[in-house]
Amino acid sequence: MEPVLIFDTTLRDGAQGENISFSPEDKIKVAQRLDDMGIHYIEGGWPGSNPAADRFFQLARGTEFTNARITAFGSTRRQGVTAEKDANLNALIGCGSPAITIFGKTWDLHVVDIMGNTLSENLAMIQESVAFLKSHGREVLYDGEHFFDGYKANPEYAVQTLKAALSGGADFVVLCDTNGGTLPHEVTEILSTVKAELDTETGRDIRVGVHAHNDCNLAVANSIAAVQAGAVMVQGTINGYGERCGNTDLTSVIPILNLKMKRPCVSEKNLAKLKPLSRFVSETSNMIPLASRPFVGKSAFAHKGGIHVSAVMKNPVSYEHINPEDVGNRRRVLVSDQAGRSNIEYKAKEMGIDLDSPAFDSKRIVSEIKMLEQEGYQYEVADGSFKVLMDKFLLKYEPVFDLESFRVTIEKDKDRPCTSHAIVKMNVGGESEITAAEGHGPVSALDNALRKALSRFYSELEEMQLVDFKVRVMDGRGGTEAKVRVLIESRDGDDVWSTIGVSEDIIEASFEALADSFQYKLAKEQ
Amino acid sequence: MEPVLIFDTTLRDGAQGENISFSPEDKIKVAQRLDDMGIHYIEGGWPGSNPAADRFFQLARGTEFTNARITAFGSTRRQGVTAEKDANLNALIGCGSPAITIFGKTWDLHVVDIMGNTLSENLAMIQESVAFLKSHGREVLYDGEHFFDGYKANPEYAVQTLKAALSGGADFVVLCDTNGGTLPHEVTEILSTVKAELDTETGRDIRVGVHAHNDCNLAVANSIAAVQAGAVMVQGTINGYGERCGNTDLTSVIPILNLKMKRPCVSEKNLAKLKPLSRFVSETSNMIPLASRPFVGKSAFAHKGGIHVSAVMKNPVSYEHINPEDVGNRRRVLVSDQAGRSNIEYKAKEMGIDLDSPAFDSKRIVSEIKMLEQEGYQYEVADGSFKVLMDKFLLKYEPVFDLESFRVTIEKDKDRPCTSHAIVKMNVGGESEITAAEGHGPVSALDNALRKALSRFYSELEEMQLVDFKVRVMDGRGGTEAKVRVLIESRDGDDVWSTIGVSEDIIEASFEALADSFQYKLAKEQ
Repeated sequence: MEPVLIFDTTLRDGAQGENISFSPEDKIKVAQRLDDMGIHYIEGGWPGSNPAADRFFQLARGTEFTNARITAFGSTRRQGVTAEKDANLNALIGCGSPAITIFGKTWDLHVVDIMGNTLSENLAMIQESVAFLKSHGREVLYDGEHFFDGYKANPEYAVQTLKAALSGGADFVVLCDTNGGTLPHEVTEILSTVKAELDTETGRDIRVGVHAHNDCNLAVANSIAAVQAGAVMVQGTINGYGERCGNTDLTSVIPILNLKMKRPCVSEKNLAKLKPLSRFVSETSNMIPLASRPFVGKSAFAHKGGIHVSAVMKNPVSYEHINPEDVGNRRRVLVSDQAGRSNIEYKAKEMGIDLDSPAFDSKRIVSEIKMLEQEGYQYEVADGSFKVLMDKFLLKYEPVFDLESFRVTIEKDKDRPCTSHAIVKMNVGGESEITAAEGHGPVSALDNALRKALSRFYSELEEMQLVDFKVRVMDGRGGTEAKVRVLIESRDGDDVWSTIGVSEDIIEASFEALADSFQYKLAKEQ
Repeated sequence: MEPVLIFDTTLRDGAQGENISFSPEDKIKVAQRLDDMGIHYIEGGWPGSNPAADRFFQLARGTEFTNARITAFGSTRRQGVTAEKDANLNALIGCGSPAITIFGKTWDLHVVDIMGNTLSENLAMIQESVAFLKSHGREVLYDGEHFFDGYKANPEYAVQTLKAALSGGADFVVLCDTNGGTLPHEVTEILSTVKAELDTETGRDIRVGVHAHNDCNLAVANSIAAVQAGAVMVQGTINGYGERCGNTDLTSVIPILNLKMKRPCVSEKNLAKLKPLSRFVSETSNMIPLASRPFVGKSAFAHKGGIHVSAVMKNPVSYEHINPEDVGNRRRVLVSDQAGRSNIEYKAKEMGIDLDSPAFDSKRIVSEIKMLEQEGYQYEVADGSFKVLMDKFLLKYEPVFDLESFRVTIEKDKDRPCTSHAIVKMNVGGESEITAAEGHGPVSALDNALRKALSRFYSELEEMQLVDFKVRVMDGRGGTEAKVRVLIESRDGDDVWSTIGVSEDIIEASFEALADSFQYKLAKEQ
């Protein structure tokens, strides 16, 4: 059976989601993770729509992808313009992506009432646009917008639009449930009927894809119904991000295809990267990870009640539909000490920490880490702080400095720009040091003051840079009194590390993460 | 066609969800709302399992329900005890609910390996328990736990368990996908085969229900597949709350049955209560409402792109699968960098702004908003700031205060907690005012100082609360010098609004969002 291809549109349709936006650099990082996971197509954006989209394709041209084809998105040519002169189609060619997806209109209501077009000009737009892109040697995927609604309104015309795309040379035709209102049995009926007609007409096995939206909570069901009816490509997004109620959640579709339908779309090894990928995308887009998300959520394999827990201990299949490790997730037993331990042992092992050392009391460490995590620390995303913490537990910790005090002041006078400065007093190797510095905002001032104080002692700090800074308010319901978690990513010539701070005071949390970052860097060098 | 009955288990299975708990008084309030919505069965808890469950049934006995039957939940009798002597079954009778659901084991693996029971004793437990409850005149629903997994392992035995329940007199047999691992086509096949066999065997039209879990993101699909295969009862929870990935989300199933499958389960009038009910349950259970939730989420009918918006204005069906008002929701037009003019015009209209006013130069406004969005403002998520901005454009803006200056200081001394205080100097209605305040962190100090200064003039500020505070670092690559976007959500008695601030200085950005929030509130009152 032909393998099912996964087409990820997190960076294009996913970015249409409310509150979701990615910088071009974020997009490249996400694309590299998707590639590493073995995703087949990665749709990066709409070239020419804004400078950020263009920048992504420019960066993508300089990046090597092993598994995935980078895909650009756009529409068919405009009415009354030749394909050769259409700015949008030329931008698609110009962006240099090996594959291109263009969408066209299926539904006569849209063609006539909304676009003020004729049915025949719409067919010409589709055919000529695909042919133009094919003439430049690109793989072309044709998205039939509103396919299912269009088919219900006017089946004959809907099929004609696909035939136009195929006669232009489209490599795939993708049936889109743009408004998300279609039910699975309709997908089954329509897709199998349409595919049979296209196959008969062309004498070929036409490659059909599906693009679903979750407005009825049925995007995953519609996608697998499509595969059962003959589709060989599923379009969707990581975590189901997307406009309105989102797109098909690939973090559900991939394991269902691999584990339950025996239609593997990624390797077993790559499937185990699913949960970290889901987590990475939520962090990058600054969305709170949904605990109840199937397969990849924190609660997906959490057991609460005693009966369930003892049954699972006897035989996991009794209350688990799959093995959590298969998707990189893990079982959690709520209100129990067992849960985090293996995770911590696993991470310690990764850092080369000897589990059998007498200094390693894993039970105590687990319980202390749990306490910290209850306060809001999350060591899963802060490897640098985790290393510093482990050094403390293992009595290997040698503080590179001791804070005496800091004071940060932010001043704003009518019409003049806001200014921030920090004064830091610390003890470094027995010497007392007091420094002051300014900055763009209070955290930057604190960073500069710390750096100034320490660089007198440690010249290696010059090669260290802060590269990312993230703030998450936990349980925002407290308003401005809520606890804040700060994550800082730092880098030197050959390493990248993350550190964390938690406090009701954002400046204190930032200081904590900064201090861990300097500590990590300097401990590494010694 | 027999109507589909809705069985709500938010208060029992929903309360198994991580972080979800209801007090008995909360449960009664939720039950009254469910009753008002026309839900047929409300499962309130497991009597005898804890004092809170008993208290709920005690309260329920004193409450009048118009539409719904209150249902108690429990298991079949224990092994080796008669039904008459079983404490659990007696507690079910004792709680006084008109209907009772008991679950029993379907899967031979559970019966033999996990419970250490025999297959025949398990059948006797089912039959005798149902018969005992029926002998007390109750309506009895039998939940076949792990029905689909059990059927796949041993179809003959699985069906025997249902026959045992029916021979005990069960009014409904409910097929449960306890582990949530079943796919829709399996539900279709198994449920229709089983129902046909039961109907033939008994010579009656056996009433079958379905109880699905969302571990494959397919609970809604499985529930409607079951209805299509002959089920006449769907069990689920409001917002899909429940253990692991949750239960079938009734806020999706109900509108699908009513609007798309023409199997109405509640009246048209009651359907319009769906979104408020969803909101009420998330507030009562203290869960943040999921914006992307189908039908009832804040984003479910939100439109971002300019093309979509102008199409929706021509004909809503072009990008909306149902009329949002049918489920008590509403269309939202997001103002974003992709927005064209039509988004802003729509949004202005919503605010009652006269488009034909000579002061309204929509072209200029669009271009200024685009410039601001390039700087990092995002008005799609900040309706409060958008209103303030529009007032400025329309020269309706009357500042409630003018800032003279602020100074915020954060101090930390070795081992002592961090402290923050703010001094704000401003001009309110010609009067100069200077105040100082402390806070949990710099933003809280600033909030307190502003509030203190303004409340002398505006007593209505007392009813205003900040309810959420979000920070996003844009393009984090600048490290601690990056630009920061702060979003604040505020609330008073009858309104919720969001405001935004952007700056390299997090405190300045927070001040901006705070100031807009106070401005919005006070302009509204005037």
